[in-house]
Amino acid sequence: YQYQEMLTNKYGEDSKLIYDLKDQGGEMLSLRYDLTVPFARYMAMANIQTIKRYHIAKVYRRDNPAMTRGRYREFYQCDFDIAGHYDPMIPDAECLRIVAEILSELKLGDFTIKVNDRRILDGIFAVCGCPGEKFRQACSAVDKLDKLTWSDVKAEMLEKGLTEESSDQIGNYVQMAGGLDLVEKLLSDEILNGNKSALAGLTDMRLLLQYLELFQITDRVQFDLSLARGLDYYTGPIFEAILLGNNDDKKERVKGETVGVGSIAGGGRYDGLVGSFHPKGKSVPCVGVSIGVERIFSIIEANIKKEKGKTRTNDTQVYVASPQKGFVEEKMKIITELWNSNIKAEMSYKKNPKMLNQMQHCEENGIPLAVIVASGELQAGTIKIRSVGSREERTVDRNKMVDELKQMIGTTACNC
Amino acid sequence: YQYQEMLTNKYGEDSKLIYDLKDQGGEMLSLRYDLTVPFARYMAMANIQTIKRYHIAKVYRRDNPAMTRGRYREFYQCDFDIAGHYDPMIPDAECLRIVAEILSELKLGDFTIKVNDRRILDGIFAVCGCPGEKFRQACSAVDKLDKLTWSDVKAEMLEKGLTEESSDQIGNYVQMAGGLDLVEKLLSDEILNGNKSALAGLTDMRLLLQYLELFQITDRVQFDLSLARGLDYYTGPIFEAILLGNNDDKKERVKGETVGVGSIAGGGRYDGLVGSFHPKGKSVPCVGVSIGVERIFSIIEANIKKEKGKTRTNDTQVYVASPQKGFVEEKMKIITELWNSNIKAEMSYKKNPKMLNQMQHCEENGIPLAVIVASGELQAGTIKIRSVGSREERTVDRNKMVDELKQMIGTTACNC
Repeated sequence: YQYQEMLTNKYGEDSKLIYDLKDQGGEMLSLRYDLTVPFARYMAMANIQTIKRYHIAKVYRRDNPAMTRGRYREFYQCDFDIAGHYDPMIPDAECLRIVAEILSELKLGDFTIKVNDRRILDGIFAVCGCPGEKFRQACSAVDKLDKLTWSDVKAEMLEKGLTEESSDQIGNYVQMAGGLDLVEKLLSDEILNGNKSALAGLTDMRLLLQYLELFQITDRVQFDLSLARGLDYYTGPIFEAILLGNNDDKKERVKGETVGVGSIAGGGRYDGLVGSFHPKGKSVPCVGVSIGVERIFSIIEANIKKEKGKTRTNDTQVYVASPQKGFVEEKMKIITELWNSNIKAEMSYKKNPKMLNQMQHCEENGIPLAVIVASGELQAGTIKIRSVGSREERTVDRNKMVDELKQMIGTTACNC
Repeated sequence: YQYQEMLTNKYGEDSKLIYDLKDQGGEMLSLRYDLTVPFARYMAMANIQTIKRYHIAKVYRRDNPAMTRGRYREFYQCDFDIAGHYDPMIPDAECLRIVAEILSELKLGDFTIKVNDRRILDGIFAVCGCPGEKFRQACSAVDKLDKLTWSDVKAEMLEKGLTEESSDQIGNYVQMAGGLDLVEKLLSDEILNGNKSALAGLTDMRLLLQYLELFQITDRVQFDLSLARGLDYYTGPIFEAILLGNNDDKKERVKGETVGVGSIAGGGRYDGLVGSFHPKGKSVPCVGVSIGVERIFSIIEANIKKEKGKTRTNDTQVYVASPQKGFVEEKMKIITELWNSNIKAEMSYKKNPKMLNQMQHCEENGIPLAVIVASGELQAGTIKIRSVGSREERTVDRNKMVDELKQMIGTTACNC
C-alpha cells in the first residue's frame, strides 16, 4: 500500500479508480494503481540515479471488472523501466524492442505497437487554438478514438469547452497514422514545426523510428497520432501494443468496438515523476512499459482451449507407483533416491492407491515416466520403467534405475 | 486484501498484528497476515478437494520491524501446501523433506527442523490438569520457551490462571526433546497414553518419524515438545526450522536470546480451516509450510558480504562497446543480431560513451564478454571479442561473431 497523498494528481481522470483505505492509526492509504508511481517514489526516496529493472506484482483498480477479457479489479502487471540521464530515444527504442520480443515470443498472434509523443499532441493542441489548461482534457478525449468514432470524440471536446474550429483542426491531425514518411511530412508542416513542443517531439520521433529500424521491429510499429494515453505523468514518447486478432475480429474493430483483449501493453517516457517525489525536486528521466499479465494469460488459455490442448501445470518427470498393497515404504525409498539425484518425482499420498488411479494421474498431468515396483521385481532386484504415453514397459536393474531414468529424461528435454 | 471478518479468530494472540483497513464503500478490510488463511478460503469458495501448490507473495504484520534480522511489516512469504483426504503423515513427511531440501540447497548453514503435534500438547495439558478453555493460552506460553527461560514461561502460566502443580507437570513434559526413542517412551507413559488426543498425536508422530527416516532427513529433525506455534488453526503436526548459526552464536542462544535470524520456516497441519470457510462446513485436510523469504535473503546477503563477494544482479552475457564516437547505429545493428540469436546483450544508453566507462560497467556487473567495434575492424569486416576477466582480445570474422560468442558462452555455463 501507499500513502494516499503520494498517488493524488498522478493519474488524471483515472484517479477515480484508485482504492482508498484507512488504517487503524487513521492514516489515509491507497492501494497502488500501477507500478510506475511507486517505482518513481522509490527512486526519489532512495536517491537512485540509474536503474533498469522489471517488476511483476499486483495493482488495484476500482473499476467494473470484465472477467472474459481478463479485466479484474486486482490484477498483475509486469513493468520494465530504464531510468537515468541518457541520450535521446536509446532507452525508449530498447523498451519497444522488448515489448515486440515478448509479444512475438508468446505467440499471441498479430500485433501492432502504436507510438506517439505527448509533445507532438501538445503542439497540435496549441497550434489548433486549444487553451493550455485544456490540453489534458483534450488528450483524454483523443485517447478514446480507439473505442469511439471521431464524431463522438469531437462531441466530448466541445463539451469540454473546445471550439468547433479547434476540434476540427485537431481531428485532421489526430486521425493520421504512418511511419517515417508521416514524421517527415509533419516536420515540413510549417504551422506545426513552428511550435517548439511539436518540433522537439517530431525530431525525437524521427530518431526513435530510425533506431527501431536498426532494431528490426518497424514492421511491428506504427506512428499513430490518435494515441494519447490517459495518465498525466507522460512527458515524451508514449506507446501501446494492440493485438489485431483474426480477420473477423478486425472487421468488428473497424466498427469501433475493441474485440477480445485489445490493448495488452502500454507505456512511455515520464521525466518529471521522480522529481515530484524528491525532497529537492531532483529529477531522473525514465521510460518504461507495463504488460498486462492476466490479459495475456486469458489469450494463451483461450488459444490452448481452441486447439483442444491442455496446459501442463507441473514439471514432474517420474511418478513412483505400485500395483500392490503395502509398498508405501518401498516407494518412499525409491522417491528419495530420485529426489537425491535431482529428478522431479511424485507418488500418491495414499498408502495403497489403485494402479488405475496412479496411471490416470500420470496421464491427466502429463507426467512422462513411471517407475513401478512390485514384489516380483523387488525379489529379483529389478524395477519397471513405463513410458506413460506409449505404455511401453522395460524391466531394468534396480541399481541402474537412476541412470536409466536420467538418460530417458535427457533425451526428451534439456533438464537444467 | 481480505474482508476483515474472514481473518477474525484465526490467529489467536497474533490477531493484534493484523492491519485493518476501511475502503471508500465503508467495507472493513484487512491486509493478509499470512498466505494460509487466504489459501483455505480460496479452496472453500472454489470447492477444491485436492491441490498441491506453492505461492510466493507479500503478507502484512502490524509489528515492530527489525531490519537487520529481516523482520519487516510488509514482507514476502513462500508457502507450500498439500490438501486432500490422504493417508496419515505421507503429505506431512513430504512437506518436511521439501523444507530440508530448500534449506540445504541454499547453503544457509546448519539447521534443525523441530516437530511436535498439537494433539500431544493438548493431551499433556489435559493430563496435567489444565482446563480445556486454557489450552490455547497454555500453548502460546509454551511457545515462548525458545526465547524465555522455563521460570518466565511458568510465571506466564500462573498469570493465566494455571495452578503451580499443573504448570510444573507441564514443564516436565515440554522440556523434553529427542527422536523415535522419546516417542516410544511417551507412548508407554501410562498417564499420557490414557489420553485419546495424546495417543493419536504420538502414534502419528511415530509414523512421521519413520517416514522421515525413509526420506533420509532424520538427522535434520528433532521431536521437540516445547514447540507450540502461536496460531490457532493447527490441528496436528506442527514444525519450525531453526538456523543454528556458528558456535559463537550457539553459546548466545543458550542464554535464551535468539541470534541473527533464528526461525526461518514454520508450518503444520490445519484440517479444520477450509471447513470454517465452506458454506456447508465441508472440510479438506491440509498441511503446509511457510518460508520467510526476506530472512533467507538477509542471511545470503550477509554470507556474500562476509566472503567479500558481490551478488550479480543481471545475467547479461555480452556487452557491445566501441572506443570511438559515432558508432551507436553500428552497435544497434550488432546487438540486434545478438538478441535475434537469444544472446543476452547490453550496450550503453549513451550515444558516445567513454571506453573506460563501458569496460568498468562490464567489470562492476560481472558481464563476462564484450564485443568491440571500431572503424578499423568495420572496414576489415572483423570484430573484437574481449574476455572481461582476463582482458584478452581476439579479432574474429564479423560473419562468425554470433557463432564464436555462442561457443564462448557455451563453455562457461549451460545456457538454457
